[in-house]
Amino acid sequence: MDFQISDRMSAMKGSAIREIFKYAADPTVISLAGGNPAPELFPNEELAGLAKEFLEQQPVLSLQYGVTEGYTPLRESVKARLKEKENIDWPDDDVIVVSGGQQAIELSTKCLVNAGDVVVVEEPSFIGATNAFRSYGAKLVGVPMDEDGMNIDALRRVLSSTPNVKIIYTIPTFQNPMGTTMSLEKRKALYAAAREFNVVIIEDNPYGDLTFDGTKLPTIKSMDEDGRVIYCGSFSKILSPGLRVGYMCANKEIVRRAVIAKQVSDVHTPMITQLLAHGFLTKFDIDALIVKMRANYAHKCSTMLDAIRTYFPEGVFYTKPKGGLFIWCDLGHGVDTLALSKAAVEKKVVYVPGNTFMVDMDKPTSTLRLNYSTMSDERIVEGIRRLGEVFGNVL
Amino acid sequence: MDFQISDRMSAMKGSAIREIFKYAADPTVISLAGGNPAPELFPNEELAGLAKEFLEQQPVLSLQYGVTEGYTPLRESVKARLKEKENIDWPDDDVIVVSGGQQAIELSTKCLVNAGDVVVVEEPSFIGATNAFRSYGAKLVGVPMDEDGMNIDALRRVLSSTPNVKIIYTIPTFQNPMGTTMSLEKRKALYAAAREFNVVIIEDNPYGDLTFDGTKLPTIKSMDEDGRVIYCGSFSKILSPGLRVGYMCANKEIVRRAVIAKQVSDVHTPMITQLLAHGFLTKFDIDALIVKMRANYAHKCSTMLDAIRTYFPEGVFYTKPKGGLFIWCDLGHGVDTLALSKAAVEKKVVYVPGNTFMVDMDKPTSTLRLNYSTMSDERIVEGIRRLGEVFGNVL
Repeated sequence: MDFQISDRMSAMKGSAIREIFKYAADPTVISLAGGNPAPELFPNEELAGLAKEFLEQQPVLSLQYGVTEGYTPLRESVKARLKEKENIDWPDDDVIVVSGGQQAIELSTKCLVNAGDVVVVEEPSFIGATNAFRSYGAKLVGVPMDEDGMNIDALRRVLSSTPNVKIIYTIPTFQNPMGTTMSLEKRKALYAAAREFNVVIIEDNPYGDLTFDGTKLPTIKSMDEDGRVIYCGSFSKILSPGLRVGYMCANKEIVRRAVIAKQVSDVHTPMITQLLAHGFLTKFDIDALIVKMRANYAHKCSTMLDAIRTYFPEGVFYTKPKGGLFIWCDLGHGVDTLALSKAAVEKKVVYVPGNTFMVDMDKPTSTLRLNYSTMSDERIVEGIRRLGEVFGNVL
Repeated sequence: MDFQISDRMSAMKGSAIREIFKYAADPTVISLAGGNPAPELFPNEELAGLAKEFLEQQPVLSLQYGVTEGYTPLRESVKARLKEKENIDWPDDDVIVVSGGQQAIELSTKCLVNAGDVVVVEEPSFIGATNAFRSYGAKLVGVPMDEDGMNIDALRRVLSSTPNVKIIYTIPTFQNPMGTTMSLEKRKALYAAAREFNVVIIEDNPYGDLTFDGTKLPTIKSMDEDGRVIYCGSFSKILSPGLRVGYMCANKEIVRRAVIAKQVSDVHTPMITQLLAHGFLTKFDIDALIVKMRANYAHKCSTMLDAIRTYFPEGVFYTKPKGGLFIWCDLGHGVDTLALSKAAVEKKVVYVPGNTFMVDMDKPTSTLRLNYSTMSDERIVEGIRRLGEVFGNVL
């Protein structure tokens, strides 16, 4: 049978990162391509104990159908944590548990975006989000990034000249793929612009806890006076990505719609993964774990930055993250990093070419994303050394 | 902020079942409204052992990101089981693990249906599926049901007179909500009609294993010679619904698209829930568990049917299921079962009014769905007795 694929999906390609991951699965390859948390920090013993306890002692709760909104005590712990840690506490908001932060973005898009509507994104931005927008026929418009976040003048030009903008999507803290942090001033200016042009903001904050020095800027959601910010949070980077537990905090009307959309998508997030997240939040010290992660990633990031200074050719631009998982590089000189990735693969090292994160993914770019959270120190240094050779050959 | 909800979601209502579940949560209420498996059959001790073992001994596998297609050994065990138990084994097909059978329906719809396209459904049909179709702007056309499944003459009339039919959605075995089984002859005729009019079939089979006498009719998928049948399977009814693990077996091109759609929806089904399903399939005897479930449900169904014969007024139509979870009733005489459900709630018993399962959910109907899998024998009998009183007052 020849299948007629829907308009919304017929233009969709698989993520290029997935193709690169095929090389990365080879254990002799040094992968700087992933976005995986460091596996040595997973609290697997604690989760094993919790899983056994819940399944043995609360079998019906653990294994029967649950409600679409999520396990109520987990929603309450998330609300309490958002209030305590992020100063997010608005009376007209509610929280829904989702199957990873990705689902918060997908459900928001399904509920708000008609085909042809515009979603404004940082350029570069997270491929999982841009593809979620594309999968509902959204038109993407990119706003260039400065080292302190989205260029607000450019954002305002887009908003004032583009009809049907529904959403501004932003990762203000330790942006994926750039690793940058939006300044407080820009956070305020972005919120003011969204308000002026009556646009919803999706604030995606999976990395916010991974601040190297422990300091945090206020989330945009904490400034949200009229309910226009949809805040996406996740346990993927501070507990385990394989659990697929995240949450969305938004105006009650948005949450109500998202519940209806989630009901037809996966009915509810699995009970056992919700119980593991809730159990860990309430019975263990997740903040102590986060402190360990911060130290681990700060060390690995600094290891990678030192190696970049040592091995990369002069003139390569790179960001200096204050947290998160990624460094962004620009080789300049018209280098095509997608083509160049083949030479890197030959030296058994992989990165993600920058075009992956762009609105026009077919246009060559001299940029690329590096990840430092997964590999050992030795492999980080060796990977950067090899990349230095590859880049030296074309610069 | 006043939100502009997308066209596809602005007409969506929450499931009426959810509202009824609010009453059902009261432990003094006898709920014949659910679709929950009997909780006493959950193999929670075995799953507790498996969860502990996986999390302790394979922490990275259990907690790191996985691939969107699903855990490869689980996909292989599902393929082997489909071949052995259902004679489904086509070289151009593939299997993707999904977050419950619901997600197979949602991803198929996203990949195949444009707004305004027609999905043909059995009338009545499963609200989770009909709402998934609605959520992508599909136009639903219902085909009336006989006691041996969809009326094929009516189906052919619909297919020959309706433009842009993309999908026929069917639950041939122990249909939800009717509890009926489509005859072998009709399965063949449905497949032939789909082929003649070049329409995809979604065959939803969450209940097939729950056959009271152990016999099974061939699935439509087992007759599929040209890859037009998307088969949705689930561990919800034979292991645990709260795990949210299902699978879709379809032509490779459909699976490839579903993988792209799933990537932006929830990235992948949680690793621990996939590992629990895989561990149970490979280390325990799921067929022995299924045999126990069959006996349990056969007994409960017969208990409910006996009570119906004793307590319901003469002339009430009801189905006599050969498996599954549901009995369907028609009170006739222009009774509105939605309005009548208030009188039932006053007597502390709940059912699902038939309008929930119809294409036009606003039109009153004299039908209703009863579930026998969740309550004890005593509560089943008492619930039917009370309903008999309620119905007797209006008939």
